[in-house]
Amino acid sequence: MTRVTAQLSVSLDGYYAGPRHNGAGDWVASAESAGFFRVTRWATDAMAWRERQGFTGGLRDTNSEVVAESFETAGAYVMGRRMADGGEVPWGDEPPFRAPVFVVTHRPRPTLLRGGGTSFTYVTEGVAAAVDRARAAAGDRDVAVAGGGSLVRQVLVAGLLDELELHVVPVLLGAGLSLFDGGLGLGAFDAIELSPARVLHTPQVTHIRYAVHGRAPLVFDDRGSGGGPTTAVD
Amino acid sequence: MTRVTAQLSVSLDGYYAGPRHNGAGDWVASAESAGFFRVTRWATDAMAWRERQGFTGGLRDTNSEVVAESFETAGAYVMGRRMADGGEVPWGDEPPFRAPVFVVTHRPRPTLLRGGGTSFTYVTEGVAAAVDRARAAAGDRDVAVAGGGSLVRQVLVAGLLDELELHVVPVLLGAGLSLFDGGLGLGAFDAIELSPARVLHTPQVTHIRYAVHGRAPLVFDDRGSGGGPTTAVD
Repeated sequence: MTRVTAQLSVSLDGYYAGPRHNGAGDWVASAESAGFFRVTRWATDAMAWRERQGFTGGLRDTNSEVVAESFETAGAYVMGRRMADGGEVPWGDEPPFRAPVFVVTHRPRPTLLRGGGTSFTYVTEGVAAAVDRARAAAGDRDVAVAGGGSLVRQVLVAGLLDELELHVVPVLLGAGLSLFDGGLGLGAFDAIELSPARVLHTPQVTHIRYAVHGRAPLVFDDRGSGGGPTTAVD
Repeated sequence: MTRVTAQLSVSLDGYYAGPRHNGAGDWVASAESAGFFRVTRWATDAMAWRERQGFTGGLRDTNSEVVAESFETAGAYVMGRRMADGGEVPWGDEPPFRAPVFVVTHRPRPTLLRGGGTSFTYVTEGVAAAVDRARAAAGDRDVAVAGGGSLVRQVLVAGLLDELELHVVPVLLGAGLSLFDGGLGLGAFDAIELSPARVLHTPQVTHIRYAVHGRAPLVFDDRGSGGGPTTAVD
């Protein structure tokens, strides 16, 4: 059964890139880029990722298996417009996706056909419509929300995300682009409940896959503790 | 050898409690409390924690072993003033620490002796002095930074923290008190590097213990990726 999945490499303090690049100068030289490449280093070191990019070398390890699995299980992708624009040139004639990609955008544009089975279809009817288009194209495989982070958040908040895998990298960036900073639209006594479906750990990164159960009220429950916090309050 | 350690139960989006209680009305009825008890539920359900509180019942499981270990390895504690004040009444005559506790405060106060080996000594010379006092009292065991979160952050930023264990709970709170929100004083191209020392996972929580290596420059390193992000940019 097709699931809607997303994965993101994040720092221990929750950033998937450094502070947003203001557009002046080269993105690659920006703090956004420095943070992004730090938290994705485990993947850029992985053979399975490098093969998809047409690069040689890389490590054949647990991290590489995680990358390979994410490519294999994705029958179609949903992608944000900024990520699609940013990747269009560097991904070249044979982008790593090898599947249909549905780009959420406000600007109509003809479908872009690339080699290796990748196509970029531009969807102007919103996130839910893009997920539907991807679901129809994914066959028995999953719909992967490729990013960016704001699109992952939109899919989560819309209640469309079945599975979220975070690759938690042992670094603190202190500032940057956060999956959750934009707000989840939750009330003070509301939460989104998940459960860990798989945890894999390596020295470079801890991979935690969550099943998303959705919104639930945050009711007071001290389990008869007497109300005495013995861990942190501020 | 005595290490300076800290642990904190946090939501997947990094909050160890709900939004800060403004002091109006009962803390226990506040959103801060609701978030706090959600992320610490794994501990309040654990037999090892309940025993220390004088409560019956609880689960004897991996989570309970994590709690027991944290009590056993702590030879002395450092604590923030607000946490100490908040716990003074509910912890009662035999607080769960059973070790000397050094409270960082601006208000001089005589040492408070409690039963079971717990004492509260009020240190007005700052965080580093409190850590030194605790180190001298800890013997061969560790100095545990009990919280609150802002004290843990101060100890981390001061470069005094050897080990940080986060108990990552599968819930998104959307807002609240965050270990890192207060800022780490890092430049745009600086980071704090850590490495995972132990990962334990249960359905209720993922325990990740990190060795803290300290500050390091965040240098651009795409490992020859060609600069084409295939994971999230915003």
